[in-house]
Amino acid sequence: MKKMRRSERIVDLTRQFLENPHTLIPLTYFAECYQAAKSSISEDIVIVNEMFQSEGIGELVTSAGAAGGVKYIPAISIKEAKESMIKICQELSNNERLLPGGYLYMLDIIGTPKWLKTIGRMFASIFAKEEIDVIVTVETKGIPIAHATASYLNVPVLVANKDSKVTEGSVVTINYISGSTKRIQTMSLAKRALREGANVLIIDDFMKAGGTIKGMINLLQEFNAQIKGIGVFVEVDGAQEKLVEDYISLARLTEVDEKEKNIKVELGNYFKEG
Amino acid sequence: MKKMRRSERIVDLTRQFLENPHTLIPLTYFAECYQAAKSSISEDIVIVNEMFQSEGIGELVTSAGAAGGVKYIPAISIKEAKESMIKICQELSNNERLLPGGYLYMLDIIGTPKWLKTIGRMFASIFAKEEIDVIVTVETKGIPIAHATASYLNVPVLVANKDSKVTEGSVVTINYISGSTKRIQTMSLAKRALREGANVLIIDDFMKAGGTIKGMINLLQEFNAQIKGIGVFVEVDGAQEKLVEDYISLARLTEVDEKEKNIKVELGNYFKEG
Repeated sequence: MKKMRRSERIVDLTRQFLENPHTLIPLTYFAECYQAAKSSISEDIVIVNEMFQSEGIGELVTSAGAAGGVKYIPAISIKEAKESMIKICQELSNNERLLPGGYLYMLDIIGTPKWLKTIGRMFASIFAKEEIDVIVTVETKGIPIAHATASYLNVPVLVANKDSKVTEGSVVTINYISGSTKRIQTMSLAKRALREGANVLIIDDFMKAGGTIKGMINLLQEFNAQIKGIGVFVEVDGAQEKLVEDYISLARLTEVDEKEKNIKVELGNYFKEG
Repeated sequence: MKKMRRSERIVDLTRQFLENPHTLIPLTYFAECYQAAKSSISEDIVIVNEMFQSEGIGELVTSAGAAGGVKYIPAISIKEAKESMIKICQELSNNERLLPGGYLYMLDIIGTPKWLKTIGRMFASIFAKEEIDVIVTVETKGIPIAHATASYLNVPVLVANKDSKVTEGSVVTINYISGSTKRIQTMSLAKRALREGANVLIIDDFMKAGGTIKGMINLLQEFNAQIKGIGVFVEVDGAQEKLVEDYISLARLTEVDEKEKNIKVELGNYFKEG
């Protein structure tokens, strides 16, 4: 095999880290891969790490010893996150997006890879240090956001089903009251899906009073899960008390005038100063 | 600003291409970004392109002229696709995965980023040249696969809803018969979601007789959409005639013995020799 030049190794190193976030890769793996000395690989990694940090996309963390290696931790700078969310908020602050019941049409944002990846990176950056084992969301619109976040955190996604899906084997089911419908609904998670005591990150697309997320918390208690974080894309700012505390929102729907069809979407609590 | 070395430019070029697939980036953009001559950038791009191709992850395509630039087209070699799918098929060929009605428990595979990205890359590679404008799937388990594919093709995802969701504004609805339930169900797509005549790629997780995908085709006809491809993760091999032709499957459920609880999952029609 032809000996690889530094620039060639750097392409592959960059790719391997970007494609395998939160994954410990031993230096010996790269040394064998590229038929190069570990010292050369170490120098390559310094270059990649410095560029990742100056680009504001995260960092490479090295751990020494026999079980050591290098791990890419994705991140996004507050500045870049703010710039992206301001654009998204401007896009969302469109009266035509208002739906009956005070909901917001967001399918185009959530459905567009560029925006979805940015949102996923934001949540992955915010919760990077929480030692998350699994992300849980409830169907349907939270699913893409949960998976985008999962792709940067490198953890699996579990989707809680509403109103009894019969196709996943034995499930644990709880009742909850969705603020929107004000009626009792059910939420289920397959028994085989989640191990006892796992560290969970809850992700959802939209939160009014928090009844749905409260339902997820109650459901996860049945598995003795540890809720390490709650991330919401858009929350509704309202006089009504939230059923859930300690959540992070990226955007807030601050004004909804259903008669005049006037809406305003602003930055969420993640960007609150002080 | 400090002048960037080749190795530093190469990290950023690699990253920009991997993060922005199927996106034309002008050379002048890079030249300004890195304060470097276009000829240096061109040499960098040759290095990145050669590495991408030898890694089997796709290629950089250059177009000349005023509106020209470089575009990263993700791909996966048949060899790597086969190796990955064989592993997935072995994982799926587990009797405990058999669910009532002949369904397969696949949530753990679809929910794991590493497998999901591989499946998305496969579909994006297969349909790379079809000039896809949008990917359409139906809720719920096809959603992650559709988004994974979309992240590599850089196109939006539309999710058709089953049985009237009331929260997306005015919708187009059709009836269809799902092979599993053998009853009439409805499927809807928001009117504002899809423009007339768009090139569509249909993606779904599981196909028996194809009633659900046939429903999607009929629904899309209401928008005069052009169906450029149909991708199914797992199809069921069976005596019953499929309602849909011209689809690509990655895996096939070839044996289902519900009494003995015996199942076998093999490579799909994409890997058929000859």
